Amino acid sequence: MTKLARTMARDLGAAVGNTVRMCGLIDDLSDDDGHRRARLRDVTGEVRLFRGRSGSSDPIAAILAAVGLGSAVEAVGQVMAGGEAGPEAGFHLDVTALDVVGPAVGKLPVDRFSALSDRLDWRFVDLRRPRNRLIFEVQTTAEEAMRGYWHEHGFVELHTPKFRPTPNQSGIELFTVGYFDRAAYLAQSPQFSKQMAMAAGFDRIFEVGPAFRAQPDATSRHATEFTSIDVEMSWIESHEDVMAFEEGWLHRVIQAVADAHGADVKRLFGVDVVVPEVPFPRLTLAEAHEILAVAGHRVTGRKDGDLDPEGERIVAAAVAERTGHELVFLTEYPEWVRAFYHMRLEHDPSRDKSFDLLWKGLEITTGAQREHRYDRLVAQALAKGISMDLVGYYLDFFKFGCPPHGGFGLGLTRFLMSLLGVDDVREVTFLHRGPDRLQP
Amino acid sequence: MTKLARTMARDLGAAVGNTVRMCGLIDDLSDDDGHRRARLRDVTGEVRLFRGRSGSSDPIAAILAAVGLGSAVEAVGQVMAGGEAGPEAGFHLDVTALDVVGPAVGKLPVDRFSALSDRLDWRFVDLRRPRNRLIFEVQTTAEEAMRGYWHEHGFVELHTPKFRPTPNQSGIELFTVGYFDRAAYLAQSPQFSKQMAMAAGFDRIFEVGPAFRAQPDATSRHATEFTSIDVEMSWIESHEDVMAFEEGWLHRVIQAVADAHGADVKRLFGVDVVVPEVPFPRLTLAEAHEILAVAGHRVTGRKDGDLDPEGERIVAAAVAERTGHELVFLTEYPEWVRAFYHMRLEHDPSRDKSFDLLWKGLEITTGAQREHRYDRLVAQALAKGISMDLVGYYLDFFKFGCPPHGGFGLGLTRFLMSLLGVDDVREVTFLHRGPDRLQP
Repeated sequence: MTKLARTMARDLGAAVGNTVRMCGLIDDLSDDDGHRRARLRDVTGEVRLFRGRSGSSDPIAAILAAVGLGSAVEAVGQVMAGGEAGPEAGFHLDVTALDVVGPAVGKLPVDRFSALSDRLDWRFVDLRRPRNRLIFEVQTTAEEAMRGYWHEHGFVELHTPKFRPTPNQSGIELFTVGYFDRAAYLAQSPQFSKQMAMAAGFDRIFEVGPAFRAQPDATSRHATEFTSIDVEMSWIESHEDVMAFEEGWLHRVIQAVADAHGADVKRLFGVDVVVPEVPFPRLTLAEAHEILAVAGHRVTGRKDGDLDPEGERIVAAAVAERTGHELVFLTEYPEWVRAFYHMRLEHDPSRDKSFDLLWKGLEITTGAQREHRYDRLVAQALAKGISMDLVGYYLDFFKFGCPPHGGFGLGLTRFLMSLLGVDDVREVTFLHRGPDRLQP
Repeated sequence: MTKLARTMARDLGAAVGNTVRMCGLIDDLSDDDGHRRARLRDVTGEVRLFRGRSGSSDPIAAILAAVGLGSAVEAVGQVMAGGEAGPEAGFHLDVTALDVVGPAVGKLPVDRFSALSDRLDWRFVDLRRPRNRLIFEVQTTAEEAMRGYWHEHGFVELHTPKFRPTPNQSGIELFTVGYFDRAAYLAQSPQFSKQMAMAAGFDRIFEVGPAFRAQPDATSRHATEFTSIDVEMSWIESHEDVMAFEEGWLHRVIQAVADAHGADVKRLFGVDVVVPEVPFPRLTLAEAHEILAVAGHRVTGRKDGDLDPEGERIVAAAVAERTGHELVFLTEYPEWVRAFYHMRLEHDPSRDKSFDLLWKGLEITTGAQREHRYDRLVAQALAKGISMDLVGYYLDFFKFGCPPHGGFGLGLTRFLMSLLGVDDVREVTFLHRGPDRLQP
């Protein structure tokens, strides 16, 4: 006998009175006057299962009475609206067939009140909560919108290698891999590879992939592995072109999330998804420091002139108050704060053509125009004391014709943290990796 | 003065007689009656640059005469059609301003006749060839179509961690990473993570990301790092549902490539992009061995009953001759060939519910229905001698309610090899990684 097609919970409104087949996990059990009701959840919503015409020896009532919380079940029955079928609102199914295809054995090890570390130990149980499911629906919608915008603007998708032949210029926070009879290093970003694509004449590229940083401190904002979203584009006039691209792109992406999930985000995270107007406000780093001076904030833990996390929050709050914007570009960084390959400002070579983007005070992007002129690039590398052994092959990219270019990287989880108002990266990562966290 | 907007080569037909600004790399130099012509290529096509009204001391003519092959240039000039402007067909630009923004210093180190290893050493020069650029346009179109199909079918996008806490069950071909004071292992596939998403009630997920295999042999089909495209779906009845999904998905993807790039693939690779009808032919492994027996082929190098690469080609050729199909599913593998977590056939537990997909004789996919019943899964693991220490946390996924599910993995570069008729994986990878290849 052919099975009924599966009906999803979101389609029950049109199915009242019909017999349907539903599949999902049991995420709540309750008793109504001695009769068990089990709530079945699928990815679109929920339904209460009950047995309307049971006697004490009814086999379906017996299954329903015994089913464990969490079990994967398949149920056939007639759809009833809340009022007619039971004490709770929503839809109910008067079950005529019930198959526990994936039984839960024993009590679920965590619930939403458990400590974060316990919830991460049992992440697959934790992810069943609608709030956690929503994070990955938002992620999917956001990435789809990102890609739509890239495709419309002629970008090509690349996958660059995560095995690197040399340490990065600083050598810090680097993971080393045994690579046959030598060592390889895990890429901290696709920076060199995406610039190589510009030397290959690829014009505009994007990549979505993992990046690896051996950060020994477990903080709420850092992970040893995260998804980096990277853009590189040629034939720009300055970093302003990169910023203009990023703000147009983010406008589209946040609009898509607001349209598809705005109400759910408000309901489950208590946050409004505010679609930012373009252009975003821009502040030079000097202007940001003026704001901090007025606010009486002294930057701690940094000697390079950049902001500390608390400073970023104060600056972002001041911009939000002045302009209503949650996002702000910071520009004109001192060159000594930044990588050797950033292009310098023509009118002030002590500052470069780079920028950060803060969203609700959290840094989500660093970007820049790169230096594509071979002689200047070599001079900048030497001035920072960088060994030619480490960057020689990178410098080759600029010897045989390379257009002016720039780009940015955006951390996917930081984007989600800002969007959803979540202050811990571990909550918005499918499976977090940190110094003390490799499993599951 | 504001610059003219950039014009791309593909739009020149509508611009004849107009003054335009073009940006690209010089990929050919020629002389026409003593006057230099330089071919500028952008990602959409090409144009010849010449200086129509030059005297001997004309500065633009001098730049044109001196520009090195490969240089990145920006040119402004009047568009002329071939016949009126010069000896070659196509469009020409009578240049009025020429800026060599990224000069090539010295001779390009490789050309299309160079040995593969030299071309890989200078991959960014090699990638400038239109044939190589096309590979990544095809990749972009294919991935866009894949995602479109996933989105329509309710799939969520995940990024699973590449750091794994334990070796895989076999322990072979595994890369080890120094992870603070312990070891981590690089994921050979997202298998366990994507199955965990099913235990989380995620229903249908996909992932596009790197996979790592320490394969010591450099072959034309293997890489130490490749892009794995993974699908997992719940509430299936059998592996047939997975195969039906994959063939519908591939039909859409190959159709999209044929529509966007079919003519270019024919021109540059000499291959027809044939859109496969669904369903694809299916053969059991036993039937495949019958074909080999008739063909007189003896499988070498394998003792497990699976096919060797030559056997795969013979079977695929026989299917193509019988059915006209380039793609064929192989099914009903002996359980001892396959992973412990595959579900067994009800009517013959010595064979499992897995499949391979061959395209033009190359294996591009392995898929299966997974065993989701805890007791059977444990029994199958024990029967294969797998240590519970290594898979204990994986087995936990099945203790608290897990729906029936299955999925497949597809190797992106193998897909491109079959599609384009390229027999070396290094040609279709942006930057290949093998035992002897870590740079650039």
